[in-house]
Amino acid sequence: MTNSSNAISSASTSTPASVTVLGLGNMGRALAGAFLAAGHPTTVWNRSAGRADELVARGAVLAASAEEAVRASALTVVCVVDYDVAEAVLAPVVEAGAFAGGRVLVNLTSDTPERSRSAAKWAAEHGIAYLDGSVMVPTTVVGGPEALIFYSGDREAYERYEGTLRALGAKATFLDEDAGLAAVYDLAMLDFFYTAMSGLVHAYALAGADGVGAGRLAPYLDTISSILPPISAVMAGHIDAGAHPGDLGNLAMEVAGIDHILHMARARGLDVTVLEAVRRIAGRSVEKGFGGDDWSRTIDEVRG
Amino acid sequence: MTNSSNAISSASTSTPASVTVLGLGNMGRALAGAFLAAGHPTTVWNRSAGRADELVARGAVLAASAEEAVRASALTVVCVVDYDVAEAVLAPVVEAGAFAGGRVLVNLTSDTPERSRSAAKWAAEHGIAYLDGSVMVPTTVVGGPEALIFYSGDREAYERYEGTLRALGAKATFLDEDAGLAAVYDLAMLDFFYTAMSGLVHAYALAGADGVGAGRLAPYLDTISSILPPISAVMAGHIDAGAHPGDLGNLAMEVAGIDHILHMARARGLDVTVLEAVRRIAGRSVEKGFGGDDWSRTIDEVRG
Repeated sequence: MTNSSNAISSASTSTPASVTVLGLGNMGRALAGAFLAAGHPTTVWNRSAGRADELVARGAVLAASAEEAVRASALTVVCVVDYDVAEAVLAPVVEAGAFAGGRVLVNLTSDTPERSRSAAKWAAEHGIAYLDGSVMVPTTVVGGPEALIFYSGDREAYERYEGTLRALGAKATFLDEDAGLAAVYDLAMLDFFYTAMSGLVHAYALAGADGVGAGRLAPYLDTISSILPPISAVMAGHIDAGAHPGDLGNLAMEVAGIDHILHMARARGLDVTVLEAVRRIAGRSVEKGFGGDDWSRTIDEVRG
Repeated sequence: MTNSSNAISSASTSTPASVTVLGLGNMGRALAGAFLAAGHPTTVWNRSAGRADELVARGAVLAASAEEAVRASALTVVCVVDYDVAEAVLAPVVEAGAFAGGRVLVNLTSDTPERSRSAAKWAAEHGIAYLDGSVMVPTTVVGGPEALIFYSGDREAYERYEGTLRALGAKATFLDEDAGLAAVYDLAMLDFFYTAMSGLVHAYALAGADGVGAGRLAPYLDTISSILPPISAVMAGHIDAGAHPGDLGNLAMEVAGIDHILHMARARGLDVTVLEAVRRIAGRSVEKGFGGDDWSRTIDEVRG
């Protein structure tokens, strides 16, 4: 327990860095709570009062202003509802010079890659080391071993504070110096997620229309979820290679299958707008002569 | 090895039943091959010649007509391109009385539940024990331990031939005496599958537009696939209970997230028709005052 390597390790982490969290919505409170749980002296601030009580009871310091909060730490995490609010909060703080002295700003607010990139440009113009991040897990998972958080932007700042940021999620991942990439990964994952969620609900509605309870269907939908990763890997290979051989299945047969689903769903009066859109895209691939290709071929139609 | 229970078990399986397979497309050949591999004397027939050569080399008997094939066995499996073809093949066979003597017909052709139910009615009118089935795995998996095949219809016929049908897939599953239910489960699972596949391809297109290769994104999309089963189980519980509390997430936030994805995708010229349809359904739920509810609430909008 007292050998030299542990002593070094212990020394390097013996004084958790002071941190600041701006924005105490559900996610902001989870982030501040994770810092506190990891032993970081944590300063917090929120536009409206009353959100900090539990954090203060756990040892957080409530700052009187965003500027005071930023000045209290070398690392500030901001997590508010959108970039408009983030800019409104940060602009006067920056004007007051509160980020001077090499302070690092980590923006975990969710928005588009464009907003992330313009925020990075703005930060660079003011000499602020900037990281843009996306929290990919619910608040209940923040701070835990499964918590995935993407970061992109200032690589040096990430490397300096990687240990600190791991307090928010053990799966902290630096993607790229393009500050927009955390949002790109975030939105691409959510793109798949919401579309898949729509498919789950539609499947429950379809089977339910013929008297099959959702609980009965659920285990079988899980078998579909379980085959998605290997199929996704095959499709990724096709997409990166630009070749879509239909060894595992082909679009002509798949479109025929979709037509059966649409027929059944329409006969039961269900909303079929999502699957109709899926059908149109796949149908365009077939019309162009790619009926023998893998589903991955549809990316050409998505790209337009 | 020679105790009485094993002797009984051995006796009941020592003479694999004779079986017939009508239709030798890719799936029909896989089914006949699985019967042969399990030691069943197998008679085959196909509308066009030349599909049976490999099966005959493995021991199958090629019948001169569908009627001759049906008369050769107590159990006939038909797997053709659709129910129109199945009826065209079977009608004269039935008229000739070839299914007399308690023969069982198992229809593994894919179509809608309506077609399955009318086929079951037609079979009943002709005194034929009828099972309707759906093969849920690719041809390469047929006959194996992971091969899921749904059956619905004549329960007594299923129970009599369950051991024989397990040669086609160890995960043979009898669902219900409603002959349409195999197709219902089939189409509900495919409904989710194709919608999710569409989401995967769109995610690759979205990230690819900002320079992220599909192979880089794939592992992160897998993390989404891995969280679908627990989320699906929660949603199934909500749907069966008719209550959709938004403890894990809520529609108002989710719609805001979808708007970020749509904004990014439109700015890159991608086809957004699928996610727009998802957004419209979820948006209708929010407009009706369910913004604080779980995503499962959208089933009310799918049901119309």
